[in-house]
Amino acid sequence: MTDYALAVDLGGTKVEAALVDGAGALVPGSRARRATGRSSSSTDLEAAVIGAVTAARASMPPDGRVIAAGVGSAGPVDLAGGRVSPINLPAWRGYPLAHLVAIGAGVDTDAVVLRLDGQCIVLAEQRLGALRGARTAMGMVVSTGIGGGLVIDGGFAPGASGNAGHIGQTLLGDPETGALATLEEIASGPAIVAWANGRGWAGRDGEELAAAYRARHPIAVAAVERCGTAIGRAVLSAAALVDLEVVAIGGGFAKVTPDLFGIIDRTIRDESPLASIDVVVRPAALGDDAPLLGAASLVSELQPA
Amino acid sequence: MTDYALAVDLGGTKVEAALVDGAGALVPGSRARRATGRSSSSTDLEAAVIGAVTAARASMPPDGRVIAAGVGSAGPVDLAGGRVSPINLPAWRGYPLAHLVAIGAGVDTDAVVLRLDGQCIVLAEQRLGALRGARTAMGMVVSTGIGGGLVIDGGFAPGASGNAGHIGQTLLGDPETGALATLEEIASGPAIVAWANGRGWAGRDGEELAAAYRARHPIAVAAVERCGTAIGRAVLSAAALVDLEVVAIGGGFAKVTPDLFGIIDRTIRDESPLASIDVVVRPAALGDDAPLLGAASLVSELQPA
Repeated sequence: MTDYALAVDLGGTKVEAALVDGAGALVPGSRARRATGRSSSSTDLEAAVIGAVTAARASMPPDGRVIAAGVGSAGPVDLAGGRVSPINLPAWRGYPLAHLVAIGAGVDTDAVVLRLDGQCIVLAEQRLGALRGARTAMGMVVSTGIGGGLVIDGGFAPGASGNAGHIGQTLLGDPETGALATLEEIASGPAIVAWANGRGWAGRDGEELAAAYRARHPIAVAAVERCGTAIGRAVLSAAALVDLEVVAIGGGFAKVTPDLFGIIDRTIRDESPLASIDVVVRPAALGDDAPLLGAASLVSELQPA
Repeated sequence: MTDYALAVDLGGTKVEAALVDGAGALVPGSRARRATGRSSSSTDLEAAVIGAVTAARASMPPDGRVIAAGVGSAGPVDLAGGRVSPINLPAWRGYPLAHLVAIGAGVDTDAVVLRLDGQCIVLAEQRLGALRGARTAMGMVVSTGIGGGLVIDGGFAPGASGNAGHIGQTLLGDPETGALATLEEIASGPAIVAWANGRGWAGRDGEELAAAYRARHPIAVAAVERCGTAIGRAVLSAAALVDLEVVAIGGGFAKVTPDLFGIIDRTIRDESPLASIDVVVRPAALGDDAPLLGAASLVSELQPA
């Protein structure tokens, strides 16, 4: 028999699964995706996870078997209980995701390692991508929500309950009104689209906003500026607190325009409250592969049987 | 000969020094203090540090000698260079404090360990005070400025350049106007006194504000509310990012009224952006001894000669 692991990434719009070979690489052709969403019922979400896992397993060679699974999930998570309560999936509150994946993978729950999705991404970027060699770093995902993960002094930093890295829940004042809001409420893809809609732009999503930005539509330009300013401020606060050297930002909305990184850089330079802050912000390198690659590498935390 | 270490704490209003015995305790009677301040020249500051160090050494028994020093300093610090640039001591930017203390203590610069003051405090509180047993925790000082330090997953977390813990440089919106401001600009003792003065209260300092609060002067009550709200918001953002289990808050202005902790707790409960945040905030236990006790314990990081 050839041993494989399964990598699973649960997010606010999709769940993905793939087989992982003994070297930690995703098995070509094994990657499968199912939709999730804010309106999904718990049964819908269970069907999506089992569907993606089953499809990934269908790519396994006849002599293969799945012996473990690494799971990244939108947070919050409860590591001790293997449970998840993703902010953008309200049907699941304290849902036993590790157990569900164990059922789908045909392994014992002890063979499933669950972590916050942002921690999977920072792990993958640190091992293989934009954070290689970094000792104190943050990975961020700007997408349906905003999440992240930390590397502190060279190590993985899950925090007291496994939920470290929730940079999206940094409390900021709204850049225009000063009203108290989280970074995610200001700068996630849906938040920025809604803000632009509220000012008369008629597009529907981040891709349309990206096109409008390229065409220099003034509301789209202002929306991207708003997003980058808020991200820059949250990065500054995080850099002051944990003394970050580098931040890698990925996720669908981070690709709205390369100019987003210039706005973030300018905010960090112009609004820094502390001369010692010397943080570099760069695009994540692994793109959509990062969550699964990070989830795959979680399996290495398991003790050999 | 009996070996002693020297503990030094440099802050925005004073520098303190004391002898530390082989068990890590402060030697009774050895503690000495000299004034510092925003208007101090570099020569003033040098005289203050050397004065405090010399006075502490004067308490040494005839058979004693100083073999090392632990130094906590207001930040930012440059650990590699042994240099400090305290925000509230503008005369010192990149000043070689470790070297100055080595001169004053009569030891080699290699025998001086420098850390951010907030990190000394969290170290002392974790070993001896309000953070005993905590694995992921923050110490905060609310005084002339606002500083802090982190314990991450049981370990000391200095960050990329030694400046982790700058919770005072969290960027917030002003609770009233929404204008961008740091926690320190909103909630430090001088900031709160200035805010109250701007609204017609005529007192001069935190002690007078504390008395006015006890007398239920409405501006003093509003000022304390403003301070606690801003601290609660910064703690929430920090808890979301590093998943804190406990925060200990000390410093002169934290004693303005015990009610300050109730306001912080209420803010954390009412404004939490994340169900997984379960952070406890309590008063620091070691009071004014924490910075020196933490500086004293830094000496244990030195390799035995």
